[in-house]
Amino acid sequence: MTAGPTVLRSAAAIREQVTAVQGAGRRVGFVPTMGSLHAGHASLVDRAAAECDDVVVSIYVNPTQFGPAEDFDRYPRDLAADCQLLARHRVRWVFAAETAEIYPPGHATRVEVAGPAEPFEGRLRPGHFCGVATVVCRLFQAVPADAAFFGAKDWQQSLVIRRMVTDLGLPIEIVVCPTVREPDGLALSSRNAYLTPQQRKQARSLSAALRQARNDWLQAVPVAEIAAGMAAVLTAAGVAVDYADVVDAESLQPLTAADTAAIALIAGRLGETRLLDNELLLPR
Amino acid sequence: MTAGPTVLRSAAAIREQVTAVQGAGRRVGFVPTMGSLHAGHASLVDRAAAECDDVVVSIYVNPTQFGPAEDFDRYPRDLAADCQLLARHRVRWVFAAETAEIYPPGHATRVEVAGPAEPFEGRLRPGHFCGVATVVCRLFQAVPADAAFFGAKDWQQSLVIRRMVTDLGLPIEIVVCPTVREPDGLALSSRNAYLTPQQRKQARSLSAALRQARNDWLQAVPVAEIAAGMAAVLTAAGVAVDYADVVDAESLQPLTAADTAAIALIAGRLGETRLLDNELLLPR
Repeated sequence: MTAGPTVLRSAAAIREQVTAVQGAGRRVGFVPTMGSLHAGHASLVDRAAAECDDVVVSIYVNPTQFGPAEDFDRYPRDLAADCQLLARHRVRWVFAAETAEIYPPGHATRVEVAGPAEPFEGRLRPGHFCGVATVVCRLFQAVPADAAFFGAKDWQQSLVIRRMVTDLGLPIEIVVCPTVREPDGLALSSRNAYLTPQQRKQARSLSAALRQARNDWLQAVPVAEIAAGMAAVLTAAGVAVDYADVVDAESLQPLTAADTAAIALIAGRLGETRLLDNELLLPR
Repeated sequence: MTAGPTVLRSAAAIREQVTAVQGAGRRVGFVPTMGSLHAGHASLVDRAAAECDDVVVSIYVNPTQFGPAEDFDRYPRDLAADCQLLARHRVRWVFAAETAEIYPPGHATRVEVAGPAEPFEGRLRPGHFCGVATVVCRLFQAVPADAAFFGAKDWQQSLVIRRMVTDLGLPIEIVVCPTVREPDGLALSSRNAYLTPQQRKQARSLSAALRQARNDWLQAVPVAEIAAGMAAVLTAAGVAVDYADVVDAESLQPLTAADTAAIALIAGRLGETRLLDNELLLPR
């Protein structure tokens, strides 16, 4: 029988706990989440547990990173189920933030990242990365961990967070961990729960498109053709394509001869559900 | 003979020193400056020394808080003189930041504060408070002090910083200290060095206007008349008035019956030199 993590609601309380164990020489790992936890989150927790003495998971559905027409209201929330999942992993604290702790009355401060936040999701979801950067900056003050763990599935988000951490000099290491997939290739996402059985089948096309991109890349197919090929696979499966591109993995700008790594990025919609995925393409 | 403070150039170095003494239970005070130090800065340092075990002063002329037509290039810089002044006070470290530490290559992150940053200086100096908030957020990571000390002369700036600290949950106490004045009432400012002897005499009108406002306030003169009276004093002395107003001391919005404290804010120009000053008006 596992006791399960201690749930803390206040930023001051979690900060005090983390600072105390760090004072005793322990390394603390942090996994920020919006709850609705799945095996992808569990893999981040396990990685944090492997690299750190104590692990904090935060659960907070951040309103400012959703657009007005997006799924903030219907985003799945189930703290009890999340804690049950975490009890099977080595998590010491869950920080289930109150909104008043994250956004105090009269809140007026935004963290704005340009650069890697501008293309792709930045263009499609105005304000999204500002909401992400602001909440992550706030969470890093509440949970002054030694390292924070993010999933590679949200690749652009991980670049935005790394940019912010470098620029503001936040004293935390950012660790980006591999995407966890279903047996048929679909990247795990809390939003997969929205898919109908039919859409769930169509969603296989995302990983299929990326597999094709990887093969094309290895055979030195021109980048524009790889991108068009991915879009074709998605469209053929009935996915409304938001973007399908191959760009520099760090800057998200068009590739140049000097690039060390590329990334294939895709996003699209099945009904009202947005899905995204990516594949790192190493130098040939 | 005093040894004088240790000058550190790197953010990692000052952070390590501060964290080490805090680990030994010492309280650290921080005075962020742009150098060109005067008795106003010295009073902040003395206050920090009175409340803390160790004091850090940062000296960095932050380019992003100057507008393109402002005085960044001619802003007075003299690190040796600054260190000489600080050697007469209890300062342990001077953090004389390299720009590459504050703004690393590819820098793309801004901290934007709305609310108290919007009126007055915010309207007259677009981007100014964004530059201030961004650099102060960065400096607070490099110098993770227990408390930071700011002058009341830059009242709006102190509100912007307090707003940012609350909103991002930065673990630092903000202490706002009284304005230090010349015998004739002029608030100390590094920019006073720009004044010609004639302008220096005209500059007395700022404190004179505030003295009049305080008397009017105590005699319950209507706020609009107090504001007009201040503007008249400044104009009569040949100061080009940017603003002269009496507003809520916390929100900088128009006063309401419920307000607990008001502030008289004035700013104007003598030639190319901008001067500002203020006076807190307590409930009558």
